[in-house]
Amino acid sequence: MNSPVGHFADQLAAAVRRCGNPVLVGLDPRLAQLPDSLRPSDAKPSWSAQADAYEQFSRGVIDVVAPLVPAVKPQTAFFEQLGPHGMAALGSVVRYASEKGLLVILDGKRNDIGSTAQAYAEGFLGSGDKSGWGADALTVSPYLGDDSLSPFVEVAQQRGAGIFVLVKTSNPGGGAFQDLVADGRPIYRHVAEHVETLAADTAGDCGYGCVGAVVGATYPQQLDELRKAMPHTWFLIPGYGSQGGTAADVAGGFDADGLGAIVNSSRAIIFAHARPEYAERFGPSRWQEAVEAATRQMIEKLADQTPAGQLASSN
Amino acid sequence: MNSPVGHFADQLAAAVRRCGNPVLVGLDPRLAQLPDSLRPSDAKPSWSAQADAYEQFSRGVIDVVAPLVPAVKPQTAFFEQLGPHGMAALGSVVRYASEKGLLVILDGKRNDIGSTAQAYAEGFLGSGDKSGWGADALTVSPYLGDDSLSPFVEVAQQRGAGIFVLVKTSNPGGGAFQDLVADGRPIYRHVAEHVETLAADTAGDCGYGCVGAVVGATYPQQLDELRKAMPHTWFLIPGYGSQGGTAADVAGGFDADGLGAIVNSSRAIIFAHARPEYAERFGPSRWQEAVEAATRQMIEKLADQTPAGQLASSN
Repeated sequence: MNSPVGHFADQLAAAVRRCGNPVLVGLDPRLAQLPDSLRPSDAKPSWSAQADAYEQFSRGVIDVVAPLVPAVKPQTAFFEQLGPHGMAALGSVVRYASEKGLLVILDGKRNDIGSTAQAYAEGFLGSGDKSGWGADALTVSPYLGDDSLSPFVEVAQQRGAGIFVLVKTSNPGGGAFQDLVADGRPIYRHVAEHVETLAADTAGDCGYGCVGAVVGATYPQQLDELRKAMPHTWFLIPGYGSQGGTAADVAGGFDADGLGAIVNSSRAIIFAHARPEYAERFGPSRWQEAVEAATRQMIEKLADQTPAGQLASSN
Repeated sequence: MNSPVGHFADQLAAAVRRCGNPVLVGLDPRLAQLPDSLRPSDAKPSWSAQADAYEQFSRGVIDVVAPLVPAVKPQTAFFEQLGPHGMAALGSVVRYASEKGLLVILDGKRNDIGSTAQAYAEGFLGSGDKSGWGADALTVSPYLGDDSLSPFVEVAQQRGAGIFVLVKTSNPGGGAFQDLVADGRPIYRHVAEHVETLAADTAGDCGYGCVGAVVGATYPQQLDELRKAMPHTWFLIPGYGSQGGTAADVAGGFDADGLGAIVNSSRAIIFAHARPEYAERFGPSRWQEAVEAATRQMIEKLADQTPAGQLASSN
């Protein structure tokens, strides 16, 4: 239980406590949904122009949420969609978020075999100059097995960074392979057991390891069950908001102290200007105020309906 | 069985027939193993200097192998390790390989839930201006389930591109989850069944679909078994050479006509200048001649010991 300086879970726990909430804002820029003022005027803008717009938009969201929440989660896919220009924008967004004091969890769902997994781990893990991307944590896929996770765990420990391994994903078809039953329990429970072992082996002062798990808000029963089975594993919970997960659905993901889970919302926050409840109130030009209102609404809902409420009241 | 113009498997079959071999050259640049003349002289070179070296090295390999083999497989991890600079180099390498007439299979092992998978598919799939990266095909991870694969299949069909889904990977720990038995058969067989359905649904004139499978050379028995179970699925076979797979090991991956499989070798070809058998003969300055010799050696071995030999003799 020895905690090196900069243990990821300890940093996350401190950030969640400082902000008084476990909200993770997903940075998922999509061209068609950008506020009018930021969308390139060409009908078919160049990748470079789109990348500039994504960067400007993401920075605008970061400016609003940095004083409110502990962390952001840029989704690599939307930046990668634009080719190398998008990746340059992503790099800039990660560093900007870090500078603003946010923890950055890059949602890349990367992995590969041993020495290649090592390259991903070294490239992504570690804030500032510690890595080429400067992220605090990365989401990782488990299909390639236990030896594909080891390099990530090692690099994460060395650099005070973390990983979140896909266990039970939020999509409707997630169960196609994850729910197949082997030796009396579903595959996601096999993955969960291995992740919990890695988490226990790397636990910091807060009791959580630098290896976390992705568990979808859309499967509240499994979230509850996994919380009990994975006492050292911090959860990244996607699927809240636009995907249908509610505050009540994610309540089971927290421990008794209101720690152990961060809850992601992407579209419902970053494109709040288009939500009926905010569209009229703010309009597209005041899109950042809509982002703030949506963030505060989510903070309140989680405080009211989950153990994370304790964090807010102790602030 | 209607084949649209530019069906990926038909293009791949034509390229394999034209070259008379099924060799896939993996572009996995690693700083420490670059030929002396290309390695930056600084003890700790900048990411930008490393990215330039990776690009120059990859172009040098492409120049040698373009007249010899049907396709190359850049490994995104090694480029991503360098941050955005590496991704700019990767973009340039993909386009250079395409210009030289090679099919480009990007080894990114990407995936995510529905609309995010769509972004990856749109970003990576489609040569030339059809996508931001300009790749002909992408490797994809199946853990997120059947609905995470659908967007890739749709975009691949629209753009004459392809995907290779991880089924049975080449690493020692690959079996940790892939070999768990559910409903009487291992998880990789469940994935294989779904992949074969997608392949059959998208079959071109050559009989193979635009959805292929990654099956490691290090598991020859499973390769044999999967060949029989997946008649419409083209295999990408990693694990040959440095990982221990031999020509005899991959023989079972081919169909009776010598089609249906491409066999990847990365380190044993691109870093051939460091292999004992070539180091003395060529030395580091003639590293491209070592690449050529190693490529020709692999072509010959596969021709001698696998059904792919028919391709060479019919040329």
